Amino acid sequence: MEELVALCKRRGFIFQSSDIYGGLQGLYDYGPLGVELKNNLKAAWWRSMVYERDDVEGLDAAILTHPATLKYSGHEATFTDLLIDCRSCNTRHRADHLDNGVCPNCGSADLTDPRPFNLMFKTSLGPVDDGASFAYLRPETAQAIFTNFKNVLDCTARKLPFGIAQIGKAFRNEITPRNFIFRVREFEIMELEFFVKPGEDEHWHQKWVEDRLDWWVDQGIGRNSLQLYDVPQAELAHYSKATFDVMYQFPHGLEELEGIANRTDFDLGSHTKAQGDFGIQAKVMENRESNAKLAIQDLESKKWLVPYVIEPSAGVERGVLAVLNEAYKIEELEDGKSRTVLAFKPHLAPIKAAVLPLKRNHEGIVAKARAIKQQLQALGLGRVLFEDTGNIGKGYRRHDEVGTPMCITVDFQTIEDDDTVTVRDRDTMAQIRLPVADLADYFTGIFR
Amino acid sequence: MEELVALCKRRGFIFQSSDIYGGLQGLYDYGPLGVELKNNLKAAWWRSMVYERDDVEGLDAAILTHPATLKYSGHEATFTDLLIDCRSCNTRHRADHLDNGVCPNCGSADLTDPRPFNLMFKTSLGPVDDGASFAYLRPETAQAIFTNFKNVLDCTARKLPFGIAQIGKAFRNEITPRNFIFRVREFEIMELEFFVKPGEDEHWHQKWVEDRLDWWVDQGIGRNSLQLYDVPQAELAHYSKATFDVMYQFPHGLEELEGIANRTDFDLGSHTKAQGDFGIQAKVMENRESNAKLAIQDLESKKWLVPYVIEPSAGVERGVLAVLNEAYKIEELEDGKSRTVLAFKPHLAPIKAAVLPLKRNHEGIVAKARAIKQQLQALGLGRVLFEDTGNIGKGYRRHDEVGTPMCITVDFQTIEDDDTVTVRDRDTMAQIRLPVADLADYFTGIFR
Repeated sequence: MEELVALCKRRGFIFQSSDIYGGLQGLYDYGPLGVELKNNLKAAWWRSMVYERDDVEGLDAAILTHPATLKYSGHEATFTDLLIDCRSCNTRHRADHLDNGVCPNCGSADLTDPRPFNLMFKTSLGPVDDGASFAYLRPETAQAIFTNFKNVLDCTARKLPFGIAQIGKAFRNEITPRNFIFRVREFEIMELEFFVKPGEDEHWHQKWVEDRLDWWVDQGIGRNSLQLYDVPQAELAHYSKATFDVMYQFPHGLEELEGIANRTDFDLGSHTKAQGDFGIQAKVMENRESNAKLAIQDLESKKWLVPYVIEPSAGVERGVLAVLNEAYKIEELEDGKSRTVLAFKPHLAPIKAAVLPLKRNHEGIVAKARAIKQQLQALGLGRVLFEDTGNIGKGYRRHDEVGTPMCITVDFQTIEDDDTVTVRDRDTMAQIRLPVADLADYFTGIFR
Repeated sequence: MEELVALCKRRGFIFQSSDIYGGLQGLYDYGPLGVELKNNLKAAWWRSMVYERDDVEGLDAAILTHPATLKYSGHEATFTDLLIDCRSCNTRHRADHLDNGVCPNCGSADLTDPRPFNLMFKTSLGPVDDGASFAYLRPETAQAIFTNFKNVLDCTARKLPFGIAQIGKAFRNEITPRNFIFRVREFEIMELEFFVKPGEDEHWHQKWVEDRLDWWVDQGIGRNSLQLYDVPQAELAHYSKATFDVMYQFPHGLEELEGIANRTDFDLGSHTKAQGDFGIQAKVMENRESNAKLAIQDLESKKWLVPYVIEPSAGVERGVLAVLNEAYKIEELEDGKSRTVLAFKPHLAPIKAAVLPLKRNHEGIVAKARAIKQQLQALGLGRVLFEDTGNIGKGYRRHDEVGTPMCITVDFQTIEDDDTVTVRDRDTMAQIRLPVADLADYFTGIFR
């Protein structure tokens, strides 16, 4: 893990947030390469969830969330950790982190009983800070999908089964953020809420578990690094009938990468008006505040029903960490030296290709290199870099280390002779000579 | 404006946030089409700012921001509106909205003097809510670019001039959010901080103003709808030497779409350690908390200097509103009827093409339509819709109204005869017959 953290900082993937002022715990900034990697992972998810399917719509809702939403979802009451205060030194600790019953700060045994501490951030809204007008920073994106269920239905006329997908920031006031970007206070989630007929939920649950495993493998995660954890009944969240966690062997241990839950009719049942009309099966809080009917009419029976929900919910940062960890390799070379490689799947690589002029500041070579960069960039496959340092060998190593699949060197032969360039492959280190006219096809082929 | 707001809700562009619980003022959710439109606009900006240039790096920093950052930026002291309290009814109002000196709520003249009210949202961080440990929700993305200046420099070895670009959410506790998505409490900004040598700042400022105007025209904003406002000295923000606002004729009036400011060396000068070493020209607060030197070594003179900053800063939501407003048309047709069209530039259209089977649920036609959808989708140009409603005429009108550039109808001739389809153009309404084999090229050509 330490090596990965150091590489991430050195090469511009991930920085500690606000580090010039001592840093903020559990918050990270994504640098020039990190932002591309993260965006590429999110785009791959969106492509597979929204674009390549015919039964999913997208959504992008606000982070600031109405308290009523998080009251009926159960978050106000149950989204808590148990904390204990030390009466001697006034520090606060998670109850499940106190092994021997004394304060880990001062050693005192004068501790309070455990009390629940809500993990949601809140903030005052509007000009009067009297505690009455506030909003939460959402702890997940799912709730806005449920509260917008009718809006989406009204504008798309969808029938069951169908889903609503969302990617966005969420916030949790973790007491002890740790393990780099694994447990943080601000993060992004990729969530699909897939609405199905009651009775078809178990079939769809199984199907989504398989789909999601396949997707992670497509992102370069070895199938052997993934395990499926069938969460025991006693550990299930209050809304869940069954949950499978996709567990990944992170550098710090086997932990959850994605959860795929059968949420039953709890969510729409909690947020709908007229709860008594739909035979809701989950145990929901009585709701007299909602003004919307979150139900759908069955085409055959003409009866209105509250759909069941299957939710694949994946953490973006956890995905980034898993992808980085799987891609990271140190290879021994024939000459006894070694090289560091991030062997990303090409669609995830922050830089798709680097175009390197053999001679720095040489007018003809530089102009040609710039033209090739523009040509490949225009294909819309991601960032292509023009890099005028003049040191090709170092350039290759540097691009191995950040996972650039392909380096293109423009030299005198290119401009004076046969309009060919050297193309060097990240994984094999093989170099071939290619006509510039063939570059676009060769480049595009890498992503097929 | 009312027509546009209604269309946005009806067709799934933009919903009032948390509306099933009465809504939250100044907060909006983006529906299935809105999320695509917004993402397309952001992608166009990123492409032009980061990918197509050779002198800009990207960044994606955390929203939760260290108080020290917003102390030295000047936000804690100056990011305020003047508010007046009514002693009779305890309501609070913006001083500049009280025309006749009485409370707009109850009519009382018993008002307090105006007091500054900070527009930043804050929230407690960590387990102890004693007011000592908190973070702000960033009011702009710019500050994290400045505080990460050294991080980015260390990993890229950039020389002046170069820029750092960021797109992300920002938050302002507006007292009176209004005009739909124009003035809101949660929004996204697209910001570039372009670092230049002192003395070259005015040249680059001028250049960026021209570039940004051109970019908005490329997004479909008529040049005649844009005006440049040279902000008078007396109105300039504390950090600015000169600012040009790009003004757009919104439905509610001529207002700012983007600001392009010459921020001098104020920002890096405010956040650097050892402020005395660099001959900083801006008036900055003394900073003894920063641990980083935010300066760059001049290659010729070997002297360390604090760069000047040119900042083009554009609102994503304002851009979306401008693009929607420019694209919105009601056309009289020859038969006396009318049609609503959103004539988006193709790269911004939420749906790039719709594939419509002539006959619903017909196995052969539907399979062919799905195959065409998958083929066009795989080109990676954006969302392609397969839509099995069986009503082609209604489909065309519906897709005019959401701005889909191209509809493709699959019929019996396609599957039984010559493998051609009908391609219908949004703007001309012309229909042509095209071989399926030519579709990919035709489709790609729309985006060139």
